[in-house]
Parts: sequence; structure tokens; C-alpha cells
Amino acid sequence: MQDIKFVYSTGDRPKLKSPHLICRFPGRGYVGKLAVDHHIQELPANHLVDIYSRSFPPQVMIKPDGTADLMKNSIFWWHSDGVDLLLLTGDSQPANPDSEYSLAEEVLGLAEQFGTEQVFTLAAYITGVFVDKPKVFGMATDPETVKALSSNNISVMDSGSITGMNGLVIGIAKLRNMKGVCLLGETSGYVVDAKASKAVLESLLQIINVRVNMTNLDKRAKDTEMLIQTIEQQMFAVKGGRQLEGQQPSQKPRDTGYIS
Amino acid sequence: MQDIKFVYSTGDRPKLKSPHLICRFPGRGYVGKLAVDHHIQELPANHLVDIYSRSFPPQVMIKPDGTADLMKNSIFWWHSDGVDLLLLTGDSQPANPDSEYSLAEEVLGLAEQFGTEQVFTLAAYITGVFVDKPKVFGMATDPETVKALSSNNISVMDSGSITGMNGLVIGIAKLRNMKGVCLLGETSGYVVDAKASKAVLESLLQIINVRVNMTNLDKRAKDTEMLIQTIEQQMFAVKGGRQLEGQQPSQKPRDTGYIS
Amino acid sequence: MQDIKFVYSTGDRPKLKSPHLICRFPGRGYVGKLAVDHHIQELPANHLVDIYSRSFPPQVMIKPDGTADLMKNSIFWWHSDGVDLLLLTGDSQPANPDSEYSLAEEVLGLAEQFGTEQVFTLAAYITGVFVDKPKVFGMATDPETVKALSSNNISVMDSGSITGMNGLVIGIAKLRNMKGVCLLGETSGYVVDAKASKAVLESLLQIINVRVNMTNLDKRAKDTEMLIQTIEQQMFAVKGGRQLEGQQPSQKPRDTGYIS
Amino acid sequence: MQDIKFVYSTGDRPKLKSPHLICRFPGRGYVGKLAVDHHIQELPANHLVDIYSRSFPPQVMIKPDGTADLMKNSIFWWHSDGVDLLLLTGDSQPANPDSEYSLAEEVLGLAEQFGTEQVFTLAAYITGVFVDKPKVFGMATDPETVKALSSNNISVMDSGSITGMNGLVIGIAKLRNMKGVCLLGETSGYVVDAKASKAVLESLLQIINVRVNMTNLDKRAKDTEMLIQTIEQQMFAVKGGRQLEGQQPSQKPRDTGYIS
Repeated sequence: MQDIKFVYSTGDRPKLKSPHLICRFPGRGYVGKLAVDHHIQELPANHLVDIYSRSFPPQVMIKPDGTADLMKNSIFWWHSDGVDLLLLTGDSQPANPDSEYSLAEEVLGLAEQFGTEQVFTLAAYITGVFVDKPKVFGMATDPETVKALSSNNISVMDSGSITGMNGLVIGIAKLRNMKGVCLLGETSGYVVDAKASKAVLESLLQIINVRVNMTNLDKRAKDTEMLIQTIEQQMFAVKGGRQLEGQQPSQKPRDTGYIS
Repeated sequence: MQDIKFVYSTGDRPKLKSPHLICRFPGRGYVGKLAVDHHIQELPANHLVDIYSRSFPPQVMIKPDGTADLMKNSIFWWHSDGVDLLLLTGDSQPANPDSEYSLAEEVLGLAEQFGTEQVFTLAAYITGVFVDKPKVFGMATDPETVKALSSNNISVMDSGSITGMNGLVIGIAKLRNMKGVCLLGETSGYVVDAKASKAVLESLLQIINVRVNMTNLDKRAKDTEMLIQTIEQQMFAVKGGRQLEGQQPSQKPRDTGYIS
Repeated sequence: MQDIKFVYSTGDRPKLKSPHLICRFPGRGYVGKLAVDHHIQELPANHLVDIYSRSFPPQVMIKPDGTADLMKNSIFWWHSDGVDLLLLTGDSQPANPDSEYSLAEEVLGLAEQFGTEQVFTLAAYITGVFVDKPKVFGMATDPETVKALSSNNISVMDSGSITGMNGLVIGIAKLRNMKGVCLLGETSGYVVDAKASKAVLESLLQIINVRVNMTNLDKRAKDTEMLIQTIEQQMFAVKGGRQLEGQQPSQKPRDTGYIS
Repeated sequence: MQDIKFVYSTGDRPKLKSPHLICRFPGRGYVGKLAVDHHIQELPANHLVDIYSRSFPPQVMIKPDGTADLMKNSIFWWHSDGVDLLLLTGDSQPANPDSEYSLAEEVLGLAEQFGTEQVFTLAAYITGVFVDKPKVFGMATDPETVKALSSNNISVMDSGSITGMNGLVIGIAKLRNMKGVCLLGETSGYVVDAKASKAVLESLLQIINVRVNMTNLDKRAKDTEMLIQTIEQQMFAVKGGRQLEGQQPSQKPRDTGYIS
């Protein structure tokens, strides 16, 4: 296998018009995963290609029916009168930095063939605290796009770094004269957080002017809320009913969050 | 040396008809090793090729006669009126993931040249406990083959992963439109387990409809049984003759086994 | 992206006459960084090219305006009636040894295209003690250049090694028949040391016969001096007012310094 | 720089007749180093080529005159009416296994161009004890050469492994249809051992039928003997004058030595 191998679905290549490329790579809190997988399911998007790489962990994952597959990423496509989309989701990030660059280049190369001009990556902004209403943070490749983020109620970042595929895809998109945005959903990092996924997806849909049915993700967000409340109650009980300074539930996020 | 180097035995290439490829790679419990090495010895199979790789540990192993060789894998072949076979055995797995993919591709490429359609890897399912009658677990590339496993008394797995060459060869076989099966012999992981090897080999031979003389492996299996009994007696004595809950000999395997 | 990618500023390539190549790579004490960044700012030098590499950490750094870039090195140029220069500065050294060799080769290859014959790297000589007047140490590719160092008041080294890009660029320059010099500013290693940067830059400017306005760097050097005095006073107070043997401020550097 | 770079001395290539290739790679006890460096000095052998590799540590070593070089290996040649030789010595072994294979292949490829049929590597057999008369151990690529070792008073090994370049060069020589021998001088591993170097060199010279003046190495061997006696006396004194079982000086080597 060459370092990265594309296995396309049978059938004709779709004709897409400057599709936005939306990527989520596995990371903490499953923020990007729930957002994009829900998106793919609700449009619904069509399978385009599976991507295998020697840099994905060398193993097969066994499914309930007793069959198994290598680790992979997958890209789906969606066409409408308004907006066309390419959506990437997957099992794994590359296990070494050199292959992260490779995979980013290959994915952007495929998107360029379809005429992509705008790239989005969805990540988590991990704060270590629970919040009622997760914020959405963002950064972009260029000042005009940064302005567009502000006007969509996204908190523009002004320092720090975004490591791994979520940052690399945006950085390399910039070198290839594409516009890139990374959206980060505020999350504790302790639980699978469908509330943060919902916030990030709503921001994204607002920016790209696409609508999807949010019912299933709403349900999961409610489940996340109940889970968080349960955890908070247990924490409160453990502390003997006293509210300790610096550890109040629903407090504003600490300054030192980190990205995943 | 290119990354992987094939050194063929002198003489004509054998003409084989869709030979099954049967691989065992070094791992815990020597389950696959004893099974395939016995198989090669008893058919007997003929040497086809030695495989050297820069990813095998850089060293030579000294033999009793004072000569030495680099670490290598070897493939043997066997032809009959019924079934043809290619059998792989070896000193070492590649030391890095990228080379695991390389070696799997090269081995499957060689098998394809001979017309292989079905691939088997033999591994260990490590449970941490001793059992009287080791089960054989299995997974496959496709639902039809999974059915065939069930009808041969193999416990089909429904979750987990198979790491390393044993999983990778099956996963890449699937991408190359071959059918693949991984058989795993239940073993404690504490001893070289010829009982587990015997169970896996018997399952394999039943599936591929080949017979070999099992006498030598039976002897080794009896030795293993005696070894296990000795260990169990010592454990029992150490605990002062009392049977402690959760630590009875010959108990059913724990749920959380792992693969090697 | 090939392993190393050059992105040139738009506009014509400058015509340079045997420009000296002056490199500083990130390391302890920021000695080289302050020296070269000041140099670039004060000439002022013009941007020639950004250098990206798969061996730089896979991430983007977010700037105050909300935009971000991949990690990179940059080369600037300067032309005068007297001396022409190429100046390299950057965010990162390669993260693995093989890529250090690659980057050194690529940078020297670019310099050769412009006719470079002399190469300088600026590093830190870390001693663990504070000194009033930082010395400048040096080594070179050939005995004639070593003589030139001595006659410029530079302490020629006679043992040890210079690891990383600062040493590699000089070693590979030698293989390419260029003359190379490494200048090392004596520094404690505890603080960002503008005094050491100033000493190294003054030595360099004397050797290459170029003048720049040192005002800004002088200011920073004074800040460094005040910072060091504050630290020393605190250390003195902590020790109860007694001067302990072997730990006097402003003492001569220990024999066992190390390079960064 | 390609992964491995050869820089030849100026002047015509020597014409050699099936020169033996004799290699020593850096390791414990400097056993091979002293032997080959003495050999090169006393013949005297002529410089043929320096070998640079990206897998050698990325640094320059500073010499007493203030100049420096990259890490490298060097090959020297010697021609006589009787026997021709190629001798390899160097600063470093490659830092990763893949490059060990590369370097071994490149060195053997160069030797093949000159018609080499026989390859020797010189290593240390580390026992952890001091001995009066170091033995020389050996292994070879083929049974005839093993016989030749026995008839030269070399203790033929019958188990174990030889790791790193000393083993790899012999293993790959075998694949290239050359004969290979590894000679190992018995040494404690605690000191630079010129006695072991002398023993190995004498065995080698006897096998290849070459003579060199041993005076300088004899002197160093005597120095080693005195050093060892001093250490032994201190050990004896420390133990209060009693000879403790299992720790007598000059005792026979333990069974479990290891190779370096």
C-alpha cells in the first residue's frame, strides 16, 4: 500500500460546485465526531471514498457481525441547489507527524479536484469545567474570514496553537490559497459532549447557510445535560454540601483551556 | 537491501492452484508457531522463499554449528490433488508499524501471483487462566466466511481488535478482494501452549479439509498439560489448600481476554 | 508537501554578490534569535522566502488578529555596496535528526545559488552562571578562519561538540567547500539574555564589516542586566547574606559549559 | 545529502585484488577500535573515502585546532604482493536500525566493486570479569570458514546473537555470497582494553597471513594490564583482604558474556 490509499465507491464521480470541505478528526470529547456524523446522517450525504494509511494503527476492528476492517477515514459528498459539501470523518489520526502532513495534503488535493475554496475543521476547546451554554471559539486563515466569524457570534481566538490534523489542514489550506476556518466547541473534556457538538454544528450551518434536522442531536444533547447534572450533584454531595471557591458548577470557563 | 528482500530457493517455481495462505507471526504463547511449524514438518512442505526486511531487528542469530543468519520470515509450499498451501513462519514481526503494512502487502502480493483466494492467520487469545479444553475463536473478512466459522464450532468474535500482522494481513487481504480468517487459540499466556496450538490447527485443518499426522503435536500437548497441572498444584499449595473465590483452576475464561 | 517546501515572496529575485549566510536556530537563551531578529529589523532586510517542513511540529500558531500559520523558517536578504547578506530565522528546528540534515542541505543549496562562500551560525554557550561581560566563543571549518576568529577577540574552542542545526550547517558547509563559523555567546541559560546576543552580534558585525544601529538591542541588554541583578540579589538574600564558596555572582564561567 | 554520502580522496582509485574488508564499529571496550586503528597506522594504510550519513548523530566534533567535522566513517586501503586490504573505522554507528542495514549494504557494495570475497568484523565479548589472557571468540557465514577459525585457536560460538553493525555486515555479506567472520575479544567491559584488542588483531593477522609491527599496541596492552591490576588491588583491599567466593580476580569468564 502506498503511504495513503484511496478506495472509491463504485459509480460515477459526483459533479460538485466549489464544495466546502468539512473535517472532523478524532479527539477529546468527541465534539467534532458527533457534529459531523450527525450532519452526514441527516443530509443525508453519500459515500465517496475510504482513505487508508500506513500511519493509522496497524490493526483491524471487529464489528458485531464478526467481520473486520482496517482503520480508515471516509469522505462523503452532498449536492444541492445552494451549497455543495465534502464531509470527512474517521477512526484515527495518523500516528506520526510526517504522515499528518501527508494526509492533510492528500485530502486537500482531493478537495481541490472538486473545486473546494473553503475548508472547515471542527475541534474541542477543553476547559475542565462544565458550562450551561457552550461557547464556540474560532480562528481563520485570513482577516476577512475572521470578520465573518465575529459576525456569527463566534469568539475569535488571539493566541495559542491548534495541534494535529485540525490545525494542519487549515495551515496547509492557506499555503494552497484556500480559506480555512477551525471551529472549537467549549467542553469540559470529561464526557462525550453532544451539547458542544450541537453548538459547533449550529455555528457551522449558520456560516455555510445549510439546514439539517437537529432532532437526534438535540436528544443526545439533553442526555449529555442530564449526565453532567448527575456528575455535578455527586461532586456537590462529596464536598459535604458546601460550595468551595473556584469549584462552582456552571462557572465561567477558566482562561487556560486547551484544544483537542 | 530494499526494504523487503525475497531470496528464493533454487529450482523451478511450483505450479499451485489457488493455494490457501496460512500465516503465523511470532507472539505470546507460541500458539501460531507450534501449529504452523508442525504443519510444515508433517506435510512435509517445501521451502519456497526467505524474506528479509530492514524492519527486522538488526542482528544475526548464531546456530549450534557456529554459523549465523539475519532475522527472516520463510514461506513453504505444498501441493496435492485436493488442496494447495502456502505456509509462512518466521523469527520476527517488523519493528515499526509502517513496515508491518509493507510486509503484509508484499506477502499478499506473492500469494496473489500463485492465485491465492483465501488467507488464514493463527494467533493467541490470551485469558490469563488455564482451561482444560481451549476454545478456538475467530473472525473473518465477510459474512459468508463468518457463517463457515460458526458451522465449524469456532466461537465468532463480535468486538475488540486484532493488532499487528495477524490483523493487518486479514485487513489488507480484504482490500485486495481476498477472503481472510483469523483463528485464535484460547491460552493463559503464561506458558508455551501446545494444547492451544493443537486446537487451532485442528480447526484450521477441518476448514481447509487437509489431514496431517498429529502425533508429535499430541505429545507436546500432553507435555503442556502436565506442565499446567504442576503449576496449578503449586498455586493451590501456596494458597494453603483453600480454594479462593475467583481463582479456581480450570475455570471458565474471563470476559476480558486479549489477542496476541 | 515535499519534505521541505519553499514559498518565495512575489517579485524578482534579488541579485546578490557572494552574500554571507547568517543563521540562527531556536535554542536556549534566545541568544541567536535576539541577535539575528535585531539585525534583520535594523538593516532592514527584505523577505525572500518562507521554508515549511514536515519535520516542524504539526500545528498552527494563532496570532493576535485571529489568523494563523504553520511553523516555518524564513530567509531575508540585504544588499549594499560593501557586503550582501542572507539571514535565516525561524520558529522551529526539525524534530528528527534526518530532517535536520535535509534542512541544512536545502538552506545551503539556496545560499549556493546566490554565490554564498561564508556561513555563520549563532548559538549559546551555556555555563549556568551569570557574568558581567559575556565572552564570545567560536569554531570554524578551517585553520585560516580560526585565525581570523582569534584576531577578532573570539575565544577559539578546542574540544567538545556542537549539536543540532548550528553544528550541522557548518559541517555540511565544509563538505560543500564553503567556509563556516559558529559563534557562541556566553550565557547562564536561565534567562532570555540580550547581553549575550549583543556580544555575539557585535563580534559578527566586526568580522563581516557591517554596521547596524544597536540602540534597541542595547536597551534590551540593559533590561537583561537589571533582571540578572534582581535574581542575584534574591539569591544572596536567600542564602542569609553569606557568600558561599563556589556560588559568587559574577564569577568566571565554569569549565563545563554546554552549547545550545 | 543522500542518506549515505561517499567523499573520496583525490587521486586515482587503487587497483586491489580481492581485498579483505576489515571493519570495526564503535562499541564497548574499544576492542575493535584499537585493533583496526593500530592496523591502519602500522601498515600504513592509505585513505580511500569518508562516509557521511544522515543517521550519524547530527553534530560536529571540535578538534584541538578549533576546526570541526561531521561524524563519519572512513575506509583505508593497503596493497602488497600477498594480501590486499580495505579497513573501515569510524566515529559512530547509525542511530536507527533501518540505516544500519543501509550502511552495511553501501559498505559491502563498495567492497564488491574492488572484488572483496571475505569480510571480517571485530567486536568485544563482554564478560564482566578481568582475565590474564583474553580469549578470542568467533562465528562465520559458513561451515568451512568455521573450521578455519577452530584451527586458528579461536573459540567457535554455538549460540547467542551479534547485534548492530558487527552482526549485520556479516549477515548481509552472506546474502551477497561473500564469506564473513566476526571475531570477538574477551574483555571485562569496564576499561579500554588494549589486551583484548591485541588478542583479536593477532588472531586476525594469523588468519589473513599479514604481519604488522605490534610494538605500540604491546605498550598499550601493558598499560591496560597495569590499570587492571590497580583496579583489582583496590577491589581486594575494599573487601578487607578476604577472597570472596565467585569474585576472585583472574577467574575464568562467566558463561553469560555479551557482545558489543
